[in-house]
Amino acid sequence: MSEAETSSELSPKWDAAGLITGVVTDARTGELLMVAHLNAEALQLTQETGEAHFWSRSRGRLWKKGETSGHVLKVVELRIDCDQDALWMRVEPQGPACHTGARSCFCRRLTPGGELEMVGEIPQDGVV
Amino acid sequence: MSEAETSSELSPKWDAAGLITGVVTDARTGELLMVAHLNAEALQLTQETGEAHFWSRSRGRLWKKGETSGHVLKVVELRIDCDQDALWMRVEPQGPACHTGARSCFCRRLTPGGELEMVGEIPQDGVV
Repeated sequence: MSEAETSSELSPKWDAAGLITGVVTDARTGELLMVAHLNAEALQLTQETGEAHFWSRSRGRLWKKGETSGHVLKVVELRIDCDQDALWMRVEPQGPACHTGARSCFCRRLTPGGELEMVGEIPQDGVV
Repeated sequence: MSEAETSSELSPKWDAAGLITGVVTDARTGELLMVAHLNAEALQLTQETGEAHFWSRSRGRLWKKGETSGHVLKVVELRIDCDQDALWMRVEPQGPACHTGARSCFCRRLTPGGELEMVGEIPQDGVV
């Protein structure tokens, strides 16, 4: 096994864009809420503030989840995977995690027929 | 909201390498087991066989989880996120998900001091 897999030292394996994958689950229910990316600064701010920060690839800037909506993600626990390129963020969400207003970004399941089917409701007001 | 976010049509948003992110959780316990990537063929085989397939970026080839170890991941449910670039794979694991032999790849937590601390045991034999 490599050093990254067994070490007690945090040494993220940043990709070519300087990012690792962040997987956010609800610490209470275990539901997968969202997947986003973190650069070194986002990780540092997440550790320092206890609130989830990310790097927005589409907007090209640092981003605190809930900075405008107030729907911040309070970090309960952070875990890193074996090769240190993915971060599990167990959180207490202070509102919907999805920008569509849904509790989770993962509210459509694939049916055996290959279609998508809603499993959670998107509120009419679509609050971010 | 965009078509991808509300549509009942599966239309994955492949990245430049033709991949989406796969987030694998234990359907029974909710534990995050691993994060890997899928290309179109891996997604198709996963849907057809009910067993998780991925694209290995390091080995540059299609890969069925457990093809050598027997530790396949039986798919209980597949969900796609709002912008269709991440797949939530809820599975029944037939053995350890991590190549280190650990049940999950995410068996180290970040302590407040910034170090890593084991939260699950890696077996001595390190069976893959």
